[in-house]
Amino acid sequence: MNRGQGQSEEAAVRSVIESWTSAVRRRDIDGILKNHSPDIVMFDVPPPFQSRGIEAYRKTWDMFFSWTRDPIPFDVADMNVIVGDDVAFVVAAMGCAEPGSDGKPKPLAFRLTVGLRKIGGQWTIVHEHHSVPAVD
Amino acid sequence: MNRGQGQSEEAAVRSVIESWTSAVRRRDIDGILKNHSPDIVMFDVPPPFQSRGIEAYRKTWDMFFSWTRDPIPFDVADMNVIVGDDVAFVVAAMGCAEPGSDGKPKPLAFRLTVGLRKIGGQWTIVHEHHSVPAVD
Repeated sequence: MNRGQGQSEEAAVRSVIESWTSAVRRRDIDGILKNHSPDIVMFDVPPPFQSRGIEAYRKTWDMFFSWTRDPIPFDVADMNVIVGDDVAFVVAAMGCAEPGSDGKPKPLAFRLTVGLRKIGGQWTIVHEHHSVPAVD
Repeated sequence: MNRGQGQSEEAAVRSVIESWTSAVRRRDIDGILKNHSPDIVMFDVPPPFQSRGIEAYRKTWDMFFSWTRDPIPFDVADMNVIVGDDVAFVVAAMGCAEPGSDGKPKPLAFRLTVGLRKIGGQWTIVHEHHSVPAVD
């Protein structure tokens, strides 16, 4: 891939991620799922250990939206895109909120890795890994 | 990439992962670092939030080995390799051990995503994301 192509593909992957985070902030489930594979494998912050397939993935957002209050923070703090001809991944530090012990949302920083394939000319999310460090 | 090339590249990536897990089981730090980028970004199970660069990455293993007992379990339960011409990622369910409340090691299942680039003809690990689901 030449340098110009790489920059253009990187921009396309960034656009997929930004479209997805924007849809989360709008509670727009169709927008969230727009560029996702039917076979996505999700490793989320809360249990379960993994969610396989788009229906299981959709349910992780039902749970998230059931306790999240508007306006929903779901923001990229830092993002690095590694892009090839038809495979890419994204490494990011993210910010959202979690329910605090007083019932009010409190800021939560989490780690995010996203894996993508270019399928039919469209960058498609096939894997997401969201986590926070474990505490004893 | 044709199908034959893809199969061969997938085998090459699997070999990098298997060499790495094998080195962990042997406490072989040079073997662990063998196919890693100087710029690796590590999201580990315990804090910190992230470790940037090979020296910080090496320290995560010093901590791991300080409490892990032999024989060290560090095994792939399930692995999916997504490989392109020069970018690849690996999605895996893994098994290791953590210190139990009685001081004895207890089995720990964790999620693993690894990001690789082909650099100078060699698949090189530029990112690892290890995690367990968060508990309240």
